[in-house]
Amino acid sequence: MSLEEKTEMSRLYKLAQKFNCFYLTGLKSTECKPFFVEGYQVGLVRPDVMKQLIRYPEVFLVSSGCVELNPAFRDYEERSGHVERVLKELRAENVFIALKGWRDECYEVKTDFTSKSLLKMDRAATCLFGIRNYGVDINGYVRHPVLGLCLWFQKRSSTKQTWPGKWDNMVGGGLSVGHGILETAHKEAMEEASVPVELLKNLISAGCVSFFFESDRGLFPNTEFIFDLELPVDFVPVNADGEVETFELLTANQCLEKILTADFKTTSAPVALDFLIRHGIVTPENDNDYLKVVELLHVPLQSIYSTYLRSMHIKENGTSVHHSNIV
Amino acid sequence: MSLEEKTEMSRLYKLAQKFNCFYLTGLKSTECKPFFVEGYQVGLVRPDVMKQLIRYPEVFLVSSGCVELNPAFRDYEERSGHVERVLKELRAENVFIALKGWRDECYEVKTDFTSKSLLKMDRAATCLFGIRNYGVDINGYVRHPVLGLCLWFQKRSSTKQTWPGKWDNMVGGGLSVGHGILETAHKEAMEEASVPVELLKNLISAGCVSFFFESDRGLFPNTEFIFDLELPVDFVPVNADGEVETFELLTANQCLEKILTADFKTTSAPVALDFLIRHGIVTPENDNDYLKVVELLHVPLQSIYSTYLRSMHIKENGTSVHHSNIV
Repeated sequence: MSLEEKTEMSRLYKLAQKFNCFYLTGLKSTECKPFFVEGYQVGLVRPDVMKQLIRYPEVFLVSSGCVELNPAFRDYEERSGHVERVLKELRAENVFIALKGWRDECYEVKTDFTSKSLLKMDRAATCLFGIRNYGVDINGYVRHPVLGLCLWFQKRSSTKQTWPGKWDNMVGGGLSVGHGILETAHKEAMEEASVPVELLKNLISAGCVSFFFESDRGLFPNTEFIFDLELPVDFVPVNADGEVETFELLTANQCLEKILTADFKTTSAPVALDFLIRHGIVTPENDNDYLKVVELLHVPLQSIYSTYLRSMHIKENGTSVHHSNIV
Repeated sequence: MSLEEKTEMSRLYKLAQKFNCFYLTGLKSTECKPFFVEGYQVGLVRPDVMKQLIRYPEVFLVSSGCVELNPAFRDYEERSGHVERVLKELRAENVFIALKGWRDECYEVKTDFTSKSLLKMDRAATCLFGIRNYGVDINGYVRHPVLGLCLWFQKRSSTKQTWPGKWDNMVGGGLSVGHGILETAHKEAMEEASVPVELLKNLISAGCVSFFFESDRGLFPNTEFIFDLELPVDFVPVNADGEVETFELLTANQCLEKILTADFKTTSAPVALDFLIRHGIVTPENDNDYLKVVELLHVPLQSIYSTYLRSMHIKENGTSVHHSNIV
């Protein structure tokens, strides 16, 4: 009915709809319930997860309006310990695909990137609670004398727990407990692609992308910190940690075609797409949905959870009061 | 009360709040009413404007829920003509500051950047209706052998109708009726800074910023298409159209300080800030509110009006039906 629906959507807009499939449903607000820790919303829980959590009333208070971590837990350690115990039980019961990928590596659970962490949780489990997670990605690029602007892509090892065998950005990794952004970028660049320290001096912070993806594993409100790294024409990345099958140098236009295929890891496409936009490959003149695409690379995850909190949940004298307008 | 309020806001976050002062009020949805043309929301109208429009019932249908351009007008020309007549009367009466800056240069009024234009309106008047507007900005930069990354800023002429005497990006201009994005970039680069054609070949499309500003003149849901232009160290911009008082080359850090001052045009700051983020000057390591700042450079203007439309307004058999849930 609307004017814009009269013209066909661009291929890039369709891609942006894919990696924002959850955002564009309006966060399925009738099905998914906010997850509160210490009065702060830190996530969203799907009905399939809620059904399991209800079996642990000493840890999770599940009401019709929301899920709350037991406010009697006193601190970070206590909250982390109780949640880990439940998750390990659910993992042993083989209830969730996501938990098959248990990593023994934790993400912090917090309201905001810079705020105090409320608990830690295995990174395989955060998608069950829709916990915001943060990663670091490096666009390794070359200004090739013949081919022009080129990017190195990696093919993920076929034994990886997530997205095995898919094409991906040259270097990427999650920000896990105890590691900083730049530190993670350096560590991953060395482990995944053997980038020597002297080249890492050329790493340029170049922004971030935020999107909200959903898969059968769970909910992914992801923010990626992006770095660009110009590489010498003769540099060839070599994997050092067994997580990459191969690397390939592609021209900017080949990259664009590659990220549009199902062979590319959906949740890594925003980073490459942002690079192609910042470097003049995707422009308002060659993509009809340019503005919508740029918007979908920066969805407001910063405010998505805090809005719920402010309007729907007030903590008074240590007692949680759930307003009736929680859907 | 929230965790994040315990830490002080960064200076850049405060700046982002300034250029998004209207977005962050939640679009003042109790005061401002949606403006519909042909059943599509294309703007928002403040109470002071509504009070005047009510005097022209043959042109504007003002109800408690919204303002609608008379749906009896048959086409682009008819709609543009009727609106222009009213605006010229209001201008003669000196009712609005905004109309003092009448430009005899029009912006297109449409639901979406790529959709068909519904009417045109003088660019001085679009802020009275909260019409989305689009501009083009060029970051003219130099990789200086001694000073490092530098940017050219212009000081606007003291006789300009808007933001006289303020500092601004090297080149910028509105996208007016009949002109394309790249065409406008070229035209403004030549008029404002005498950039020679051979240098314009190096213009790189680098993304866009979207924000929603309000001033005493009106409402500004702005989207700027951004270009980066690397300039030779010995190039000096020279104004050719009388709209610039002077140009100055600043180091990246001096630029950062400058955009934080009241001497810089508030609605141009997003473009320079985005440049400083993309080029590694502002990073997640040196700005505590980095993610919030990047989010506020890309607020969802693409969906802001269409959401209203879909949920609140349905056109049936040529008759407008206003749902009772219009606030």
